[in-house]
Amino acid sequence: MSMNKKRIKDLQYLLKKEKLDALVVSRPLEQAFLTGFAMDGYLMLVSRNESWAFMPKMLLDHFRSKVDFVNASASENLLESVAARAKENRFRKTAFEPAAETYLRGRFWKKSGFREIKGLTAGLRAVKQGEEISILRRSCHIAAHTFRIIKPRIKPGRTEISVARELEDLMQSMGAKGPSFNLIVGFGPDSALPHHESSERPLKKNETVLLDFGCVYNGYCSDITRTYFMGKPAGEFKKVYSLVEAAQKAGVKKVKAGVCAREVDKTCRDHLAEAGYGQYFIHGTGHGVGLEIHEAPTLNTKSEEVLKAGMAVTVEPGIYLYGKFGVRIEDSVLVKNNGCEILTK
Amino acid sequence: MSMNKKRIKDLQYLLKKEKLDALVVSRPLEQAFLTGFAMDGYLMLVSRNESWAFMPKMLLDHFRSKVDFVNASASENLLESVAARAKENRFRKTAFEPAAETYLRGRFWKKSGFREIKGLTAGLRAVKQGEEISILRRSCHIAAHTFRIIKPRIKPGRTEISVARELEDLMQSMGAKGPSFNLIVGFGPDSALPHHESSERPLKKNETVLLDFGCVYNGYCSDITRTYFMGKPAGEFKKVYSLVEAAQKAGVKKVKAGVCAREVDKTCRDHLAEAGYGQYFIHGTGHGVGLEIHEAPTLNTKSEEVLKAGMAVTVEPGIYLYGKFGVRIEDSVLVKNNGCEILTK
Repeated sequence: MSMNKKRIKDLQYLLKKEKLDALVVSRPLEQAFLTGFAMDGYLMLVSRNESWAFMPKMLLDHFRSKVDFVNASASENLLESVAARAKENRFRKTAFEPAAETYLRGRFWKKSGFREIKGLTAGLRAVKQGEEISILRRSCHIAAHTFRIIKPRIKPGRTEISVARELEDLMQSMGAKGPSFNLIVGFGPDSALPHHESSERPLKKNETVLLDFGCVYNGYCSDITRTYFMGKPAGEFKKVYSLVEAAQKAGVKKVKAGVCAREVDKTCRDHLAEAGYGQYFIHGTGHGVGLEIHEAPTLNTKSEEVLKAGMAVTVEPGIYLYGKFGVRIEDSVLVKNNGCEILTK
Repeated sequence: MSMNKKRIKDLQYLLKKEKLDALVVSRPLEQAFLTGFAMDGYLMLVSRNESWAFMPKMLLDHFRSKVDFVNASASENLLESVAARAKENRFRKTAFEPAAETYLRGRFWKKSGFREIKGLTAGLRAVKQGEEISILRRSCHIAAHTFRIIKPRIKPGRTEISVARELEDLMQSMGAKGPSFNLIVGFGPDSALPHHESSERPLKKNETVLLDFGCVYNGYCSDITRTYFMGKPAGEFKKVYSLVEAAQKAGVKKVKAGVCAREVDKTCRDHLAEAGYGQYFIHGTGHGVGLEIHEAPTLNTKSEEVLKAGMAVTVEPGIYLYGKFGVRIEDSVLVKNNGCEILTK
């Protein structure tokens, strides 16, 4: 059985468990997860025993040439077709995922008598299985290896953008399709902006270098951050770096199946707060990675999710001294029963 | 007045015209259009006289360092903050755009008493002004020039993916940030799939080559398709090519301010249908281009929008003979009062 067919089976098992007749799958990403066909513009309906795809005529031959285990048909009005199929099959409990739908579409499902269900496909995707794990491992290895290659090439005078481009090129030369997000290269005070947009700013001597990057390899996203000092680090950088490094290690050590995601955040957060830097850690500790660069679970102060073996998450505490510099250290790790495997090494 | 400030003014003018007190702006793209700050994770509320941005603490310093004409504040619950601000100001008619919202968020706005309004920001963005036009022109010139460079380099044996990569590299070397979509390079029968995903398939002698590509330059997307035959074209290719070429030229000739978008589609469609190929033109004729690769207006059989001077749209009829080959020819054009300017030349 192909990986995609197995995923549809897994979803059908969840439908039974949730006592649902069917689920509308409308995000391209989840559709690709279930069918292997990654293309915008179609809709799926998955019942306990069957699955259908409705699409513009333009996609039909293409879809059928790639997917033989989903009933595909052309439709001029995808939403009406989904609602009609549910009706023909007398489904009484058809659900849609409200965070995956536009308001316009969600309202149509509601009018069609469909109900809301949260996180069904996200939960399915959060736990990585089989070849997903080796693909993700490779994606992370490419990123980690790229850091080793680029570090000696980053010299005063180079711009942030030129480094971002070279990161992309290096990762592509190792088989990546492209970057997994808008890569962040921050020099000096730019490193203090967690979501800085790489600019034409050149690196000066004696400055912080922050690289937050990753690639898409075979559909799977990696995420890594490395920070270091170009030149001889001043006392404050050394102190902050050691602190973030220790907090990140403590966070990684905390990751294990059965632990609440919130606890990993708390471990990092407490570590920085105890040293008096709590107010400078201005974001959550991490997030799931996989087909998306940000996916379930979330690791922050409010997370209620419990980590499961097979989840892949980032651990990325940071300290941001606005106007001066910032330090963030991030690894992507795979949750295991007895701890975790650092993927970005 | 900066371009962004002017856009907020333009939106505020529309609010008055639509008799609205305020609009929630929640898509990062539209927020960037209004503020110049392109970053996920914040929400805006724009009233007739003021504008506010609510964001996680992590973004606040960064936002303020770039944008001084929007009231920015940190918030732990962005949705509640927007609703509270509308309430404090006693706004009675606050709107949101239902196609731009998830169902989950739209429902919150509804519960907050907000109403729906369609296409306000899309309409604002559809008509390009000032420096947007020169940026878009440059984006399209980069794409068109890239075709001239790459064509002689595409030889039998090269894979689709290697050509897609080189298209990206060439466009980046001319200043583009990256590709404007998942570039389509289709050889032989792959050219008959309108949304083909470039593969490891090598080009053989005597085959069709279809390149559908474009770049993001300074935020603006270009879109161009060129099809040709590698080797000596067979009779059927020549016939189909001439037909698509004539249909595309007729479509471009039809583009002018005041013409209904549907009419441009009809011109291309009729041309192909009269030659007996109507059933093989399986998609719409075009779409707007700008900050997004697909934006308003849409040019298909159902379009009701009337073209305005300053709109930038694609004209891209095609004929797809599944299993054999496909031909699509596409230009991005700028609508003018007396016709249009071909941007991808």
